[in-house]
Amino acid sequence: MKAKVYVTLKKSVLDPQGKAVQQALSSMGFNEVKDVRMGKYIELDLGAIEKTQAEQKIKSMCEKLLANTVIEEFRYELN
Amino acid sequence: MKAKVYVTLKKSVLDPQGKAVQQALSSMGFNEVKDVRMGKYIELDLGAIEKTQAEQKIKSMCEKLLANTVIEEFRYELN
Repeated sequence: MKAKVYVTLKKSVLDPQGKAVQQALSSMGFNEVKDVRMGKYIELDLGAIEKTQAEQKIKSMCEKLLANTVIEEFRYELN
Repeated sequence: MKAKVYVTLKKSVLDPQGKAVQQALSSMGFNEVKDVRMGKYIELDLGAIEKTQAEQKIKSMCEKLLANTVIEEFRYELN
């Protein structure tokens, strides 16, 4: 079973990296870009494991290591 | 129009960050994780713009700034 995890900063948290990318894009002529938010994308291979168990494991991994839940939120897809 | 961009390392490129995450997960008891690949997830707000034009712009942004096409590949979603 493979999992895709998306970790993003919470809406209320400032994103200086995103701001820097927006300014870089703007200086390159892409003025239509109003906002940029940077996040992490993580692909995990969980081997042979049941979906319900995989879901539980992934949630635990996100809370303990992959995301800082104070400032970040996460979502995942399993297939 | 909003765009979601996913930038990942090419399959043939080693991912030391992913390896480190895998080892950290393993040391925490998540031994079922066979492989981890780290990537970037970028959300862009393009304002009021046509879909075909947005697609063209996003592709150009990825090739010029957001992804290093020598070692990375990208895909995007518009909505």
